[in-house]
Amino acid sequence: VSALQDTRPDDRPGIGFGLLGYGFMGKAHSNALRTIPYIFWPGVARPALVAISGRTEASVAEAATRYGFARWSTDWQDVVDDDEVDVFDCVGPDDTHAPSVMAAIRAGKHVVCEKPLAPTAEEAVELARAADAAGVKHLTCFNYRFMPAVQLAHQIIANGEIGEIHQARFRYSQEWRTDPDGALPSPVGALNIIGVHAIDQARLLVGEIENVSALITSPVTTESRMAGDQPAERIDTAAMVVGFAGGVAGTIDCSLVSPGRKNQLAWEINGSKGSVAWDLEDLNVLRIHRRGGTDTEGFTKVIVNESSHRLAAPWWPSAHILGWEHGHINMLAHFLEAVATDSPVGPYAATFHDGARASQVVAAAMRSADEGVRVDVPALEGGD
Amino acid sequence: VSALQDTRPDDRPGIGFGLLGYGFMGKAHSNALRTIPYIFWPGVARPALVAISGRTEASVAEAATRYGFARWSTDWQDVVDDDEVDVFDCVGPDDTHAPSVMAAIRAGKHVVCEKPLAPTAEEAVELARAADAAGVKHLTCFNYRFMPAVQLAHQIIANGEIGEIHQARFRYSQEWRTDPDGALPSPVGALNIIGVHAIDQARLLVGEIENVSALITSPVTTESRMAGDQPAERIDTAAMVVGFAGGVAGTIDCSLVSPGRKNQLAWEINGSKGSVAWDLEDLNVLRIHRRGGTDTEGFTKVIVNESSHRLAAPWWPSAHILGWEHGHINMLAHFLEAVATDSPVGPYAATFHDGARASQVVAAAMRSADEGVRVDVPALEGGD
Amino acid sequence: VSALQDTRPDDRPGIGFGLLGYGFMGKAHSNALRTIPYIFWPGVARPALVAISGRTEASVAEAATRYGFARWSTDWQDVVDDDEVDVFDCVGPDDTHAPSVMAAIRAGKHVVCEKPLAPTAEEAVELARAADAAGVKHLTCFNYRFMPAVQLAHQIIANGEIGEIHQARFRYSQEWRTDPDGALPSPVGALNIIGVHAIDQARLLVGEIENVSALITSPVTTESRMAGDQPAERIDTAAMVVGFAGGVAGTIDCSLVSPGRKNQLAWEINGSKGSVAWDLEDLNVLRIHRRGGTDTEGFTKVIVNESSHRLAAPWWPSAHILGWEHGHINMLAHFLEAVATDSPVGPYAATFHDGARASQVVAAAMRSADEGVRVDVPALEGGD
Amino acid sequence: VSALQDTRPDDRPGIGFGLLGYGFMGKAHSNALRTIPYIFWPGVARPALVAISGRTEASVAEAATRYGFARWSTDWQDVVDDDEVDVFDCVGPDDTHAPSVMAAIRAGKHVVCEKPLAPTAEEAVELARAADAAGVKHLTCFNYRFMPAVQLAHQIIANGEIGEIHQARFRYSQEWRTDPDGALPSPVGALNIIGVHAIDQARLLVGEIENVSALITSPVTTESRMAGDQPAERIDTAAMVVGFAGGVAGTIDCSLVSPGRKNQLAWEINGSKGSVAWDLEDLNVLRIHRRGGTDTEGFTKVIVNESSHRLAAPWWPSAHILGWEHGHINMLAHFLEAVATDSPVGPYAATFHDGARASQVVAAAMRSADEGVRVDVPALEGGD
Repeated sequence: VSALQDTRPDDRPGIGFGLLGYGFMGKAHSNALRTIPYIFWPGVARPALVAISGRTEASVAEAATRYGFARWSTDWQDVVDDDEVDVFDCVGPDDTHAPSVMAAIRAGKHVVCEKPLAPTAEEAVELARAADAAGVKHLTCFNYRFMPAVQLAHQIIANGEIGEIHQARFRYSQEWRTDPDGALPSPVGALNIIGVHAIDQARLLVGEIENVSALITSPVTTESRMAGDQPAERIDTAAMVVGFAGGVAGTIDCSLVSPGRKNQLAWEINGSKGSVAWDLEDLNVLRIHRRGGTDTEGFTKVIVNESSHRLAAPWWPSAHILGWEHGHINMLAHFLEAVATDSPVGPYAATFHDGARASQVVAAAMRSADEGVRVDVPALEGGD
Repeated sequence: VSALQDTRPDDRPGIGFGLLGYGFMGKAHSNALRTIPYIFWPGVARPALVAISGRTEASVAEAATRYGFARWSTDWQDVVDDDEVDVFDCVGPDDTHAPSVMAAIRAGKHVVCEKPLAPTAEEAVELARAADAAGVKHLTCFNYRFMPAVQLAHQIIANGEIGEIHQARFRYSQEWRTDPDGALPSPVGALNIIGVHAIDQARLLVGEIENVSALITSPVTTESRMAGDQPAERIDTAAMVVGFAGGVAGTIDCSLVSPGRKNQLAWEINGSKGSVAWDLEDLNVLRIHRRGGTDTEGFTKVIVNESSHRLAAPWWPSAHILGWEHGHINMLAHFLEAVATDSPVGPYAATFHDGARASQVVAAAMRSADEGVRVDVPALEGGD
Repeated sequence: VSALQDTRPDDRPGIGFGLLGYGFMGKAHSNALRTIPYIFWPGVARPALVAISGRTEASVAEAATRYGFARWSTDWQDVVDDDEVDVFDCVGPDDTHAPSVMAAIRAGKHVVCEKPLAPTAEEAVELARAADAAGVKHLTCFNYRFMPAVQLAHQIIANGEIGEIHQARFRYSQEWRTDPDGALPSPVGALNIIGVHAIDQARLLVGEIENVSALITSPVTTESRMAGDQPAERIDTAAMVVGFAGGVAGTIDCSLVSPGRKNQLAWEINGSKGSVAWDLEDLNVLRIHRRGGTDTEGFTKVIVNESSHRLAAPWWPSAHILGWEHGHINMLAHFLEAVATDSPVGPYAATFHDGARASQVVAAAMRSADEGVRVDVPALEGGD
Repeated sequence: VSALQDTRPDDRPGIGFGLLGYGFMGKAHSNALRTIPYIFWPGVARPALVAISGRTEASVAEAATRYGFARWSTDWQDVVDDDEVDVFDCVGPDDTHAPSVMAAIRAGKHVVCEKPLAPTAEEAVELARAADAAGVKHLTCFNYRFMPAVQLAHQIIANGEIGEIHQARFRYSQEWRTDPDGALPSPVGALNIIGVHAIDQARLLVGEIENVSALITSPVTTESRMAGDQPAERIDTAAMVVGFAGGVAGTIDCSLVSPGRKNQLAWEINGSKGSVAWDLEDLNVLRIHRRGGTDTEGFTKVIVNESSHRLAAPWWPSAHILGWEHGHINMLAHFLEAVATDSPVGPYAATFHDGARASQVVAAAMRSADEGVRVDVPALEGGD
């Protein structure tokens, strides 16, 4: 006779998630929500996939079936209003971010929002203030903060292992806008689509950005090619010199017209005792140099996939490397725990303050490029 | 009023999976079964997680809840006997492979088995013959065949793009057995735990291995350190020269005592028109050289994550790189489709013939090391 | 009986060289002058090592013996006045450049000068004008222009192979000033000692620099630590955004306080049809990407040491790679030929115009850092 | 009035060199002899370029002028007989090695010989015995021993820094024989032209090779294509498993038909405490891993160009990297000093014993390939 037993159900509390968006980012977030339950085990809670919304009925209905959301709607307001939704997660087109997230905040939902938080710095700051005022938890999806190698770098810097920072350089380069005759898969310009990630990494790892000097170019993307009227949408490249709090200087550049660079978010940070360097195209690797006065010094290539590495530990054995989507999974697992245990979002995670700050740096860069002067980034009130 | 609609259920046919094992490989297979439904969309079927078995009651019960299997047992025979199980997937300890898989074959189940198929070549061959005779579909888990970069290499070679193969070298190096005082996390020796992967890649990419000359060493793992009595378990390193069908020669080496090499399955294949090279520690990258008589030739670093790349296509956009577990997901998705549509397993996938062949090469290497002669690998009867 | 024949002497005309300086750069130039005769064979002329000068009698006398100069003096004026000196080659300390080279120009000598041409942009411009007016040939020692990989990049860009340039980034990082307690081997600041090389590469490969926005820092080098009173000497790092003629934007940064970066002059240039990238620490390699719409694109690692590569051809067979000093040898061989055949210096070689321009960019960067505005670099009168 | 002083001549004793050969290797050796005097300063002696011989009168006469040899002849016997020749340096075609070097030994000259020492192991052993018996100093030109990175690796291993050696792999791959229709620039087969270098590196770094199992292929080079009748000349690839003294196993492979590999002599050695790896195409870099139980371990990329590195010290500052020819310069400087001070050749340098041993390993590999058995390499009598 068979001794097969019926399985005890997963009785961890469910945190209800409602999504706006079912495209590339909807897939990444849904994948995260479905993976968290068994990777972050035993954990304190599990995500419940409650509802998803999107503009096109057939597509959103299919996405609901595909990813396992219980309900769907073509109106994000329905998701905001759904009582079982604890977290409103906005991964829709950029112009849906501000209105839907503001409505969710007003409905008392915890909020997750893809970058950029809003098309303008003013709206982004307003969202951050509203979320703070409402007392809800908030997360800007700077997913690259949740790569194990980035977290190791953050920890090394925070521990003083590379000493005082001397100089830093950040870049984010992609190539998909290079062809002037090609279809434009996204209208979002270089600063808002990728530049904010580089800005956020700079803020996370080096410190607050106080001023910016920039040049912006649009060698490929003409006005006529763009559907919208946002100048930011036409930006193909931006090159910035930034001044950090404490007097450190560095460069940040981003480009959507760099052939051969598929997805290169890369940086190097030099300090008085050592250096760290990273590249998203080889995301499991952190290169570390420690000054030591020996004749066998150099950059060490560390594969950040050991059980001793935060955020690698829940996954696979040594050097069974992680992929791009693991950033989102790790990030949403963190937010899930913050909601379930009413603990703070951060310090690794980016809140809406960080999203707003990135937008302010973008705004300062655009003004600097326009006016030919170094532009101070205003202090963020009530910032963390 | 809310326009929220209830989601239409996923009505694709379910193919029932029963697992033996809940450790590292159980996690990798369960992750695959849970990910396939929404990544391989719309697909022709979905895996149903029917039952899981393992030795320790508390652990297997927990794994059932964690991964969402409907039932569990401490006896694999219960899983084999479960009527809803279409596919028996053996990811348990090596000594469970042969008996449980043979029972499943006899019960008419399709079978998946982690490597090595069996502790001896004879048993592995017997499994392959039995599976053929029973008319069930069979898969040996050589998951690295399902890395997009490996498939691109296979396709390039098959298309004749690097011409006739001249020489090849394969290695698989890890470091975890280096410490003679450390606990031994696995008793499996270098040839069976990692060497078979290198052997399988060689067979996939270059061709059938006809003879082997080998040296085998155990600098760290003494007899007393091993629980079992299998000589293969003591193997720390193996170095082989192999002769391929058609007269190509190459080297294959494996080692569990190579400090700094966390998980380096790496190869390079040189042909009359070009070369290809790959390294599992940087698994998304294929390096390709094409002879062309220009002064700007060299190895091109191709990030194999474009929508035009087979097996990268279902995933993320350009250069949003994949991790180690995607091999298993892609592999089990292939087997699921083969079962659901009654189509052949392969040619990319490894059947039990491939598993048996790898074991035969291991056996030949052990004999060559012992006897000091080049050893022919016997032809596999009824091989594909 | 022996058939040994007496060797026919090398009867190529000798071009007399007089050096100021016998340190690191004196060694590099002397090595070049002694190597050119048999590497650039048959060639049109050979360097004659006529005279060398330097401050310390014992040292300069020893250097004369060591390198084979016929005469020596502790006074550079003696070298300038020596009738057999056709070329005055100034490789002494920075403060000797302007007075000695100006004297040589007035004496009608052809002139070679290490970078920076002069401590201020004004003096550098004055030297360029004087050399033009005197009709002598002039060379600024931007030796990295003469690396085979850099020349290949220049040729690829000039041929339009990467199309219109979209963005570029240049860096030059070293580490030797990091230790605040260490001896300061050179008082020259980051912009003048290494930044000018990065600026020159940018001008060579992308085009004229029209404006600069910069931040400059001195985290390690305090005023008290410096012997001199030049603000430029205290610069540890400089970060710049530069606008090129034609509207291209890019970044240039330099640092003497970047641990682990021994001698990293590195750049990447993205164009509408492809990209090129180079790093002095791996100087024989040029990385080239060409857009082509295939699924096997990526950066190709080209070892620029084939007989088909300009400046590699006189040396060794395929991939028998060159070292750092070969830039100087190739550069002085070019100048020797220009003098011997009365042909123009350039277009690959840097004249005094290029040296002056680099100094003007440095001056603009220092003003931008000071004033917080984007600074236009003035047009160079009579420039080439 | 001018204070120009006449330079004191270089009064170090001259050691007379006589060359056979003026091609690629003649150029490399001549370059070394002309560079040593001022790089190895003050040194104990200087090379005197006495005589050069070669088959073609016009060419050897031109080479004498080009490189500055005092005399020349078309008969190497004249060079051997020249009283001012202290060192006979044979860099001619392979078939000239044994007879000319044996004559030089008999004439009491110190001898330098390019690899392979002789076409057969027997002749090579005979040369080694004769040189020992004559009491002359002898050097086989395994120039890669004199790369700073190789010497650092040797020192690290000798110091026990990577512990007991566990496994090692060596390869030497070039591509120039790939084209079956191309002219064959050299008749020398893969084992003798490049394999001996890999064998020598293995012996230097790991230890004596005691046995070999090999496969040899000639996919491109048919019998009819070869001028000579030496089977070794037709070898395009060789793959070997080698057993080292002490029980370590490893692989050595070489190939002249590996597209994209221009000059890749590469190895990795794993020990109980760490690993080292090197590649001639990036010859200044040694990759070192040290086991340490930390979470920031990995291979460190060390640019071996510091003043603290033996053989880098005489050259340029930090990371002003060296090229291929520096191996020859460093090697001949060592031999010059050994001759001038009557001190032993080695331990870093390869004597004729090492050259003979490499030929014995080649012979054993050819026999193993032929007979299908593991072949012991005979002990070298009177070996060092």
